[in-house]
Amino acid sequence: MPDREKLNIVPFVSVDSMMRLVLHFGVERVLADLAGYIEEDFRRWESFEKTSRLASHSPDGVIELMPTCDGRQYSFKYVNGYPKNTRNGLQTVAAFGVLSDVDCGYPLMLSEMTILTALRTGATSALAGRYLAPAGAKTMAIIGNGAQSEFQALGFKALTGIDTVRLYDIDPVATEKCLRNLAGMGLTLVACRSAEEAVEGAEIITTVTADKNCNTILTDNLVGQGVHINAVGGDCPGKTELHRDILLKSDIFVEYPEQTRIEGEIQQLPKDYPVKELWRVIAGLEPGRSNRRQITLFDSVGFAIEDFSALRFVYDRLQETRMFEELDLLADRDEPRDLFGMLLRKEAAMRQG
Amino acid sequence: MPDREKLNIVPFVSVDSMMRLVLHFGVERVLADLAGYIEEDFRRWESFEKTSRLASHSPDGVIELMPTCDGRQYSFKYVNGYPKNTRNGLQTVAAFGVLSDVDCGYPLMLSEMTILTALRTGATSALAGRYLAPAGAKTMAIIGNGAQSEFQALGFKALTGIDTVRLYDIDPVATEKCLRNLAGMGLTLVACRSAEEAVEGAEIITTVTADKNCNTILTDNLVGQGVHINAVGGDCPGKTELHRDILLKSDIFVEYPEQTRIEGEIQQLPKDYPVKELWRVIAGLEPGRSNRRQITLFDSVGFAIEDFSALRFVYDRLQETRMFEELDLLADRDEPRDLFGMLLRKEAAMRQG
Repeated sequence: MPDREKLNIVPFVSVDSMMRLVLHFGVERVLADLAGYIEEDFRRWESFEKTSRLASHSPDGVIELMPTCDGRQYSFKYVNGYPKNTRNGLQTVAAFGVLSDVDCGYPLMLSEMTILTALRTGATSALAGRYLAPAGAKTMAIIGNGAQSEFQALGFKALTGIDTVRLYDIDPVATEKCLRNLAGMGLTLVACRSAEEAVEGAEIITTVTADKNCNTILTDNLVGQGVHINAVGGDCPGKTELHRDILLKSDIFVEYPEQTRIEGEIQQLPKDYPVKELWRVIAGLEPGRSNRRQITLFDSVGFAIEDFSALRFVYDRLQETRMFEELDLLADRDEPRDLFGMLLRKEAAMRQG
Repeated sequence: MPDREKLNIVPFVSVDSMMRLVLHFGVERVLADLAGYIEEDFRRWESFEKTSRLASHSPDGVIELMPTCDGRQYSFKYVNGYPKNTRNGLQTVAAFGVLSDVDCGYPLMLSEMTILTALRTGATSALAGRYLAPAGAKTMAIIGNGAQSEFQALGFKALTGIDTVRLYDIDPVATEKCLRNLAGMGLTLVACRSAEEAVEGAEIITTVTADKNCNTILTDNLVGQGVHINAVGGDCPGKTELHRDILLKSDIFVEYPEQTRIEGEIQQLPKDYPVKELWRVIAGLEPGRSNRRQITLFDSVGFAIEDFSALRFVYDRLQETRMFEELDLLADRDEPRDLFGMLLRKEAAMRQG
């Protein structure tokens, strides 16, 4: 934990600090440890304040706030989702977040979360995979080879032990980038020319495309018995990836049903269609995968508690790594009721030179 | 506007930068200009996305997120309210906020908002006072002389032309601080020993105390005909300042009724009790004060659009003043779909030294 004596200062984990922190521990170790934090928080799911994210939609995208609180700490994430941003050299998803101390309401840390969101999404998917994918699964298809894809591949490698990844993207350049980035990391990589080819022999199918449309990335005939589908890309109203028939033959697991029914693949289904909550599986209250023929589907949209876990993970590493900067974000503490006096003292100080 | 070429960088207005910015223009000028921005935004109230703030309550206080959007820009404020914080040398209210570009969802600016919130609250109160206080009002009572009080005094001086402030606080030290801070600023200052004494001859009564209780700061018999009450302190569930009878004999003006009915003085009244929306008065759709005997009450709780206006005001001054720092908050732009590759490039760069 950073120095709490300087109460005006909030530790800030910049993009650069986050990269150094991730590289310090190694991506796979970070994904595994992060999954541990998420698992721990999902086990105590009921101790969190939960709300669907607060979304501000515009024609090209959405800006969202995702708060949660466990009574001791509070977090929120600011995240945008703008599929067309890449055309202008911007990130589709850019994010930052804050972890706060509930005792006084002060921020404990401000952190970039563009990289951290990719990490926590990969970690959450892989954690769900550990409970839902067929035992001994070795091959995963990744359909959509954009910014999230490598984190998915390494997350599943670290947590479920896959050794082969079959890659497909409508844009071959994305697949090439993914091949290049994952080279030499202990995975057998297979570039495929179609979704059909990618899913051949895959026990796990990850869909992680970015278009803000109801696309059918996967059709019913491509999904065989016993497969685990990790549907990451469909995550806002009007954005889905799977054909409805796939949903109907799968056992569906979700993060927070209230939010997933609006944003996830299951927005295609009736409001009362039965789904299972992942946290209940992780807490041992419900079975995950129960037989080898079952098709399991993790309809992931990303929930605030995962960001809370991710921020908690980073915060817990600040004292050891010192990988943060100091941000003059809060007013000083010498006389808290004298906010105006701060201005006067500053004026006097400036006058003196 | 700052340099948009460096898209990973978000301008950051620290507490120090905010103080320099305010001192550069002068507090009264800032309050007046800020009121102009708020007035402009209240006039186009209907073009904003509006929601009650998202509050996370704990035994000692509350952490809130306050987002809004006009279709071109988006803003949110993070703000805590912890009355007991002063006992530990912390601010009762500490805040920061972000202004974003709706075209791409990227933050345009991160700013401290502890000082800025005090300024926008003073500016909003004074703006309401200009429409609601009796013409030619010269004397204001301020009950509660904590962190907000000087901003209220100078806001009304700048916008409505008051020349006398009568101060009262249960803690005489707070009043002394306020007297000291406002000395030499062109106001006649009168320290009072009771609320009764403070309201004597005052045409405007500002209540701005911080206790998280239903206190009766003002009782019915203290409020005479023709007075304007500016009730600033009661701003969350269970926190009010005025006796119910005062509400019943006043014409009540509010910011956003949905929020004020939960948080404001009117939480004491039935859910359908008639109130007027301040923006409609400012837009000329409804009268403000209509006669000299009327008691007007601005039941202020603070609304997201005021923070939007305040952030817009600060942002519009960044290019001229350059009073900001650069924050490495977003991932870089050279290859937006290649988030993972950033890590690899960083690793290679670190290896090279």
